[in-house]
Amino acid sequence: MAIIKGTVKKKEYYIVIIGCGRLGSRIASLLSSQGHSVVVVDRDEDALQALSYEFSGFTILGEATELDTLKNAKLDKADIALVLSPDDNTNIMIALVAKEYFSTPRVIARVYDPNNLEVFSQFGIEIICPTLLAVESIKEALEIAGDES
Amino acid sequence: MAIIKGTVKKKEYYIVIIGCGRLGSRIASLLSSQGHSVVVVDRDEDALQALSYEFSGFTILGEATELDTLKNAKLDKADIALVLSPDDNTNIMIALVAKEYFSTPRVIARVYDPNNLEVFSQFGIEIICPTLLAVESIKEALEIAGDES
Repeated sequence: MAIIKGTVKKKEYYIVIIGCGRLGSRIASLLSSQGHSVVVVDRDEDALQALSYEFSGFTILGEATELDTLKNAKLDKADIALVLSPDDNTNIMIALVAKEYFSTPRVIARVYDPNNLEVFSQFGIEIICPTLLAVESIKEALEIAGDES
Repeated sequence: MAIIKGTVKKKEYYIVIIGCGRLGSRIASLLSSQGHSVVVVDRDEDALQALSYEFSGFTILGEATELDTLKNAKLDKADIALVLSPDDNTNIMIALVAKEYFSTPRVIARVYDPNNLEVFSQFGIEIICPTLLAVESIKEALEIAGDES
């Protein structure tokens, strides 16, 4: 439910990932091991260096809130932008810039606070909300138990 | 995948929720609106006061790492403990105490760092890992697009 179908239809994507935390680094390694071209942007050198050996893409050290950093990441050529910084406001800003300025076909952003979901959706940004995913998981777990009674 | 089937088979549960952050408060309101008896424990009074009007359960202000707090929450009577503090180590500790000391039939804990999953699983604690849920969501979103090509 946190994901809306997109429009990119190639088999191999050029993917720019903003934010190299737990989620960003994991998804970066996964996507690069699947043969996609992946660039990861983070302002923390340690985070970038902690990428697993499976990751065969590029890293860019810099502030993703600066246009030059996103230009260096060639966001204008990207099929997909995954905006996964730890701050909702930063993510809204970067996602909007990806969508409007760089015309990235698919922009998927992490949203921490479910109250912010609407802001993202109204700009056509696809969203991943771990809080809501976890709520769904817990509901599902309790319903499964209930069904057995 | 982040949830293992449990053994509680009643229709209405007595549920103790540790941690009243975004996830805890949401799930507390949801479960209490479904007619379950819910007690929420947090050390932050503001967090407890921010619970929505839908929440009709009890709140306990206190450190969940102290046995007395968990006794006050009547964890020994609980069908389910949801351990949702923002710290994996705290969650391991509380989940273990729920399982072993209070014999809570189902203990579900949030795990932030996927590297900690094994520790929880080996003690029979069910886990919710928002990072892995988000990875799955992103994979799914990209596969859906791929299938359309």
